[in-house]
Amino acid sequence: MPRLKVFDDCINELSRLPGVGRKTATRLAMHILRQDNTYATRLSNSIQALKDRTRFCDLCGGLAESSLCGVCSDPYRQKQTICIVADAQDILAIEQTARFRGVYHALGGTLSPMDGIGPEELRMDELLDRIRVSLASSELSASSSGKVEVEIIIATNHDIEGDTTALYLQRILREFAHNEGATIHISRIASGLPAGSHIEYADELTIFKAMEGRRRV
Amino acid sequence: MPRLKVFDDCINELSRLPGVGRKTATRLAMHILRQDNTYATRLSNSIQALKDRTRFCDLCGGLAESSLCGVCSDPYRQKQTICIVADAQDILAIEQTARFRGVYHALGGTLSPMDGIGPEELRMDELLDRIRVSLASSELSASSSGKVEVEIIIATNHDIEGDTTALYLQRILREFAHNEGATIHISRIASGLPAGSHIEYADELTIFKAMEGRRRV
Repeated sequence: MPRLKVFDDCINELSRLPGVGRKTATRLAMHILRQDNTYATRLSNSIQALKDRTRFCDLCGGLAESSLCGVCSDPYRQKQTICIVADAQDILAIEQTARFRGVYHALGGTLSPMDGIGPEELRMDELLDRIRVSLASSELSASSSGKVEVEIIIATNHDIEGDTTALYLQRILREFAHNEGATIHISRIASGLPAGSHIEYADELTIFKAMEGRRRV
Repeated sequence: MPRLKVFDDCINELSRLPGVGRKTATRLAMHILRQDNTYATRLSNSIQALKDRTRFCDLCGGLAESSLCGVCSDPYRQKQTICIVADAQDILAIEQTARFRGVYHALGGTLSPMDGIGPEELRMDELLDRIRVSLASSELSASSSGKVEVEIIIATNHDIEGDTTALYLQRILREFAHNEGATIHISRIASGLPAGSHIEYADELTIFKAMEGRRRV
């Protein structure tokens, strides 16, 4: 039987998705065919609408509907507190907690020399430009007290690439603060036991990190 | 930040796919956004085209562009040899070998009492109707030699549901052959070591099945 071109086309496009091989793509296509008539249309339209109606924020790199995302365009978000993340989806995850009141900066990845991703592949210059702007506006608003401060929270993953990126960021930011004569408070999100988890089931490195990162109570 | 509706809509639709949860759907959506402008359109169009331009064959249940699939409408395929499979994608997998010259019958699943799938949920009656037609046409073409035969190959998976379905099919088909006074040769696809695999790494059940299913050489 000659294979159906329309089927193979769909398999080809589906198998470009991350983690989807040809076997999985076949299973997905069959699933789509078995659903009621409206599902394929809804799925297809939602993908097209996603691409047509969203973009990445010019300032932070997060998901946006216009040139600035909801966070960057919100006058109530503290622009002097910048949370650095690897990717736009990390912003979504942190926003889910609804606790953070600062702004974000998505680097567009993490340092990974093996994959040819160096500092120039990440949005480092944009980050330093933003900090410069924050420092300037902080200087204006804090002119009476004289305090010029920016807080940076490094929220890259706690894995090798994420830790390497965090170390690199610390070095760059300290240099930058020194050159600009500014105060930049830098912190790294905590590593430890996940909420609701049990010590006896945790791996050694997690327990070590949790002990090392203990807080006075 | 209020979540973007267009993003959430896409996550909702993607997470209806089998094996795709909300986290995976988010990763897929982000991947789609990061591709060049044409990818979302190509993916979206290919899904819609798949649904618009394919259907399931009226006869065998396989993937088709019109009421009959390429196999069922091919005059050179042997209609007296019917390979029974669980689903349409199994037909694609067997067709890849380009060796089988008979036709197929997709049951639309396997017996699974736990999931409420009994014989009436599968395309059993359609199977018996097809065998009846095959026997009749075999009778016509073989009228000189007088042989009226149909060969059935049961190609359900070698797992509990597949084996149960195979046993059920054997019983039904033997009863049917007896009632119709016809000769139906029934076989089951072999279980054994996969091609290119090593005995030392095979599991016990596979080795046992391979020994049990040994062939004289």
